[in-house]
Amino acid sequence: MEQYSAQLDGIFQALADPTRRAVLGRLGKGPASIGELAKPFDMALPSFMKHIHFLEDSGLIRTRKAGRVRTCAIRKRPFAAIETWLSAQRALWEARTDRLEQFVTAVRDKGQAR
Amino acid sequence: MEQYSAQLDGIFQALADPTRRAVLGRLGKGPASIGELAKPFDMALPSFMKHIHFLEDSGLIRTRKAGRVRTCAIRKRPFAAIETWLSAQRALWEARTDRLEQFVTAVRDKGQAR
Repeated sequence: MEQYSAQLDGIFQALADPTRRAVLGRLGKGPASIGELAKPFDMALPSFMKHIHFLEDSGLIRTRKAGRVRTCAIRKRPFAAIETWLSAQRALWEARTDRLEQFVTAVRDKGQAR
Repeated sequence: MEQYSAQLDGIFQALADPTRRAVLGRLGKGPASIGELAKPFDMALPSFMKHIHFLEDSGLIRTRKAGRVRTCAIRKRPFAAIETWLSAQRALWEARTDRLEQFVTAVRDKGQAR
């Protein structure tokens, strides 16, 4: 649970930046080299690499070096972790809606019984 | 688009903290006062209020003061924004899987035609 929570911290932190989200959007279409990924951004390579390392540390991407080229690819499992968290939130709201409906029904039935 | 992106920055940043996620989990069950929300956390009130303000600024919660009590409630719209973003990611992956399948089918058909 602690580990899952720390993982979520890293994932959400990684997603809280437009450059990193754009990189994930590009990698959603298929793997790409650092050079290709960096091209659309008006950013020095060291700054761009910080974003790549951030994404890699959060588990959202993996990178592999072949010769002089480092290729990045998306990892889908962390996205599943977000969806699990969102589903748990939604389950709470739905349970609450069910309780409110039961309450309204009970009040109505009581009214009719009078 | 710019505004949507800035909104996502704030939402993901707000979710990147276990205290703030726990507060959202509590509010998923229904509105609560600041006092009730703060109780489970071993944290000074000013530190806790920073989390509340962060959540409010990101749009994930709204607060209302009645007399001396400030009550917080969850806002569901930002969750929909995350889901929209996740769906867009998933659509990219699926389009890619479709292209890979078409490619495999084409290669296989070419092999059979020989």
